[in-house]
Amino acid sequence: MLVGDPHSVTEDFNSELLGFERFRMATQSGKVLVYGGKGALGTSVVNYFKSRNWWVVSVDLFPNEEAHANVIITKTDVWTEQESEVGSKVEEALKEEKFDAILCVAGGWAGGNAASKAFVKNSDMMWKQSVWSSVIASGLASKHLKEGGLLQLTGAKASLDGGTPGMMGYGMAKAAVHQLVKSLSMEGNGLPANTTALAICPVTLDTPNNRKWMKDADFSTWTSMDYVSELLFNWSSGVERPPAGSLVQLVTQDNQTNLNIA
Amino acid sequence: MLVGDPHSVTEDFNSELLGFERFRMATQSGKVLVYGGKGALGTSVVNYFKSRNWWVVSVDLFPNEEAHANVIITKTDVWTEQESEVGSKVEEALKEEKFDAILCVAGGWAGGNAASKAFVKNSDMMWKQSVWSSVIASGLASKHLKEGGLLQLTGAKASLDGGTPGMMGYGMAKAAVHQLVKSLSMEGNGLPANTTALAICPVTLDTPNNRKWMKDADFSTWTSMDYVSELLFNWSSGVERPPAGSLVQLVTQDNQTNLNIA
Repeated sequence: MLVGDPHSVTEDFNSELLGFERFRMATQSGKVLVYGGKGALGTSVVNYFKSRNWWVVSVDLFPNEEAHANVIITKTDVWTEQESEVGSKVEEALKEEKFDAILCVAGGWAGGNAASKAFVKNSDMMWKQSVWSSVIASGLASKHLKEGGLLQLTGAKASLDGGTPGMMGYGMAKAAVHQLVKSLSMEGNGLPANTTALAICPVTLDTPNNRKWMKDADFSTWTSMDYVSELLFNWSSGVERPPAGSLVQLVTQDNQTNLNIA
Repeated sequence: MLVGDPHSVTEDFNSELLGFERFRMATQSGKVLVYGGKGALGTSVVNYFKSRNWWVVSVDLFPNEEAHANVIITKTDVWTEQESEVGSKVEEALKEEKFDAILCVAGGWAGGNAASKAFVKNSDMMWKQSVWSSVIASGLASKHLKEGGLLQLTGAKASLDGGTPGMMGYGMAKAAVHQLVKSLSMEGNGLPANTTALAICPVTLDTPNNRKWMKDADFSTWTSMDYVSELLFNWSSGVERPPAGSLVQLVTQDNQTNLNIA
């Protein structure tokens, strides 16, 4: 048995005539690229899509062994270098196929105001984690997404609400992502026809790192990664997908998450 | 006669006891840093403030011979390198003095959507021109601006209005600047007390380059650099200065510019 779900394999199918990868790709329900696939949320997303029999490519600094293919990023200060590295590795993994969804869940957090010693250093880190990834994912979508596909980026509710003086670099990077989503939802965006580009805008995700650094927080207001993974799976499958340009706030109270679409 | 305005020099003042620079600084009306001081707008601003007897520091890739001091930036892909270079050179020029105003008029324009070959390259350029400069200027303000001083950044009306599919990198960079201005106007921003941080959001400035590249445009809707220079001078002098956090749209029709404050 080559794949997890025997119902997708016809019994007289002669798998030995095809390469294993080709066979696997042919029997998957859908194809997804997860940018940031080894992060906390990315890992959850990779597992969720895999369990639903999707073919999953992870793009990250480190491999995710659960993914069907891994695109490993080399750290660099040169954005165009990262773009061409990711671009050629994705092409190699994808062959002539197309993705149903490209999900960018890369990101991170750093604080600091204008007087912080690490103001520029942290702004730079936020830019690389959130904006480099979002822009490269958007470029990949222009080439490798199916018509009618989903391009999802990751914003932040805090930055939608106005200024973020205690985390200036984070707020700026997320504001850039929000504006990019608006551009990606308009005529002339360069994406395949009927692409839905949108962003999730979480408050706080319930990740191990956030639990470690904010021990005394009220976890019942944090959004679970299972919830987000299921949400992204549904949207990727065309179920209750919000319109293009949506900035979807994930607002959790009493462990219940509501979507607030801006 | 050492300086342009004789009324600011008392007749018995013995300039020979002081170094020339020290004398000049002491007799100026105000001190301003112009980030991007050799660009089209920057050159106009430097000249305007100089004509009003302010002491002017220009920060740019090239020296502005009209400025009293020049901080020359080396091109780099490493943001923190640029920050420390500018920081130490500004300190050297300024000695123990403070600025009345820090004006960041650096910037540029590049087009492109998600499918453009130069999408990442242009986004990178926009980021360096608009966001690196704005963030470094904000850091300088936290150290070298007087209380009650002015920190002015440069946004863009287009990016205030929503998406910019034909110029995605430009829109993102300006959205980041707009959000930064909001952060810089809030409690805990790290700036000296009573700093006014704001941005001008032009549509099109009437520069030689814009005239060269858009020969057939309606120039009567472009904003003159003289107008902007006078505006920034007035604000720097405390005249009709908008409140902190203002995103000031410069809307020109029939060669008349109106301010629309968001």
